[in-house]
Amino acid sequence: MTQQKISMQLQCPMPAFDFDVITLGHGSGGLLTRKLLESGVFEIFNNPFLNEKHDGAYLNLPGNCAFTTDSFVVSPIFFPGGNIGELAVNGTVNDLAMCGAIPKYLSLSFILEEGLRMEEFWEILVSIKTACQKAGVHIVTGDTKVVEKGKGDKIFINTSGIGQLHPASSIRLNRIKAGDKIILNGNIATHGIAIMSVREGLTFESDIISDTMALNETVMALLDEFGQQIHFLRDPTRGGVATTLSEIARDGGVGIEIVEKYLPIDEQVAGACEILGLDPVYVANEGVFISIVDEKIADKYLTTLKGLEQGKNAAIIGEVVIAHPKQVVLTSKIGGKRVVNMLAGDQLPRIC
Amino acid sequence: MTQQKISMQLQCPMPAFDFDVITLGHGSGGLLTRKLLESGVFEIFNNPFLNEKHDGAYLNLPGNCAFTTDSFVVSPIFFPGGNIGELAVNGTVNDLAMCGAIPKYLSLSFILEEGLRMEEFWEILVSIKTACQKAGVHIVTGDTKVVEKGKGDKIFINTSGIGQLHPASSIRLNRIKAGDKIILNGNIATHGIAIMSVREGLTFESDIISDTMALNETVMALLDEFGQQIHFLRDPTRGGVATTLSEIARDGGVGIEIVEKYLPIDEQVAGACEILGLDPVYVANEGVFISIVDEKIADKYLTTLKGLEQGKNAAIIGEVVIAHPKQVVLTSKIGGKRVVNMLAGDQLPRIC
Repeated sequence: MTQQKISMQLQCPMPAFDFDVITLGHGSGGLLTRKLLESGVFEIFNNPFLNEKHDGAYLNLPGNCAFTTDSFVVSPIFFPGGNIGELAVNGTVNDLAMCGAIPKYLSLSFILEEGLRMEEFWEILVSIKTACQKAGVHIVTGDTKVVEKGKGDKIFINTSGIGQLHPASSIRLNRIKAGDKIILNGNIATHGIAIMSVREGLTFESDIISDTMALNETVMALLDEFGQQIHFLRDPTRGGVATTLSEIARDGGVGIEIVEKYLPIDEQVAGACEILGLDPVYVANEGVFISIVDEKIADKYLTTLKGLEQGKNAAIIGEVVIAHPKQVVLTSKIGGKRVVNMLAGDQLPRIC
Repeated sequence: MTQQKISMQLQCPMPAFDFDVITLGHGSGGLLTRKLLESGVFEIFNNPFLNEKHDGAYLNLPGNCAFTTDSFVVSPIFFPGGNIGELAVNGTVNDLAMCGAIPKYLSLSFILEEGLRMEEFWEILVSIKTACQKAGVHIVTGDTKVVEKGKGDKIFINTSGIGQLHPASSIRLNRIKAGDKIILNGNIATHGIAIMSVREGLTFESDIISDTMALNETVMALLDEFGQQIHFLRDPTRGGVATTLSEIARDGGVGIEIVEKYLPIDEQVAGACEILGLDPVYVANEGVFISIVDEKIADKYLTTLKGLEQGKNAAIIGEVVIAHPKQVVLTSKIGGKRVVNMLAGDQLPRIC
């Protein structure tokens, strides 16, 4: 057990549940569900919305909002640098941030497999709480289902979220225009390689840990300063930077050019990609976001971003062009150019 | 294939997918995910929110709202009277209605098991669309994950929803008071028995079909007429009427008395419960809601409810009392009284 995990458990010691594992009865909606929730789950997320204990939460929402959903099925559920719980919070928080919204309220829905150990479940719950606190969001409504052993895989989590649009944000595909610069905040391919290293039993000189983190504070600071000059934001999770840029090019009807040598990547991660035969532009990220900004502010944007903890490895990696609409062209390290498509097949199943 | 299913498919014929089953690649976030979505999924749910194709939907929300979430793991995924798709829509729509909210926007998140047949998936999608149309809600954001064969069970669905509070509604546990009448809109135990009949291979003189339906129109009509005189609403799904009333008694700190002979139930369903050794007060419902209303309006409320299609079997089943706070007491058909607790154990796992 890592030091971090121990300290988290010290803050939220596991209650004395009178069962060691999840059983089907915990999903019955009856006494056992209630026992599970009242033994500590309600308490750990304690807030006035949840405490109403109704079928939903009453919220006063401020007009312009964003609404998003994600189900998380990552395997293994514990991985270097995190677990499925914080991943689920950060993932939905980041989707809201990418809409230019200040994340506010999350729902939390579990599909548990019979036999899940309460220790594991509790550790995940504590991570969810910690991640919510870091991101400044509340779990306001939830649901718990249980499926028979062999009909699930330990735990699947859905988080849906509501955020309040930042007043200065205007993030839409149709705002992307030729000349816009494409900027990454940090190193790519880290999450995917962290997961793969566990699955493949690889070891490295120093640990490669997932970059799962909430990006909302950084994004809001950028929106405060640059407002509508930020034309588009998206976090390249499943499918990596290449797939996300391909989607943006297709859906936005624009051409995109990127330069391989500008892509920030940790040396060890790059090495691992080589060993595993993976192209890092297709490998999943959890703490990376792509900004597409007006060329006039690009240098200043980069400077601001580099001054923030989550942007210290930031780089301008390319631009939006008039040529080859709907296509992404990458200039490789040896100077050749190739079209970059979406990820084909299933390079890394269940990465998030 | 039933007549109903055929007619649904005629309205939304299955597109010519170039794959027969779901594969892991459909959850990659890459080309295959895109193919799946663009082969008909985006089109079937076509609306301006979804068409933005961003990480979340932009919504203009009207201040006082309700927000809810539910994951659906019902087995089998097709059952008499419905399937997991419409169940997922109706379930979340009903949770919003129980908050006194007009359901507006849903998110839709799939966890698919590798090998799910596209025919089945399409039929579920069509049911989701049909259910959304009936309930007047839009799918505005979504997610699709795929897990390996044996790590899921065909399909799990999460729907989260946002509704606008009905201006006259004030539905809170603390509004329940002694003297309030407890009213059911219709026959209990139907959904549970419909599912059990498939699992146990039971046949009846006429089909027992699930009562899955959206209750929002009926509830809104009642709120229009009775407003704040409706003190509480809840749909007794998992755990049945007994569990839900027990929860209300405990969380609201009130005593509840109900009379068994007043509980509306279909004769065949009652017979099936007897055969299966199930107490119908613990059997799941999907089209039933409990109203707790001011005693002064109870008779008029019942009359209005009985005049509505979804209330034709409505009945006053009991009342809120000062005696035995936090307990539900049932007067049995032979006149004895007993305390009714929450469902213990897992009578009917994966009922929704």
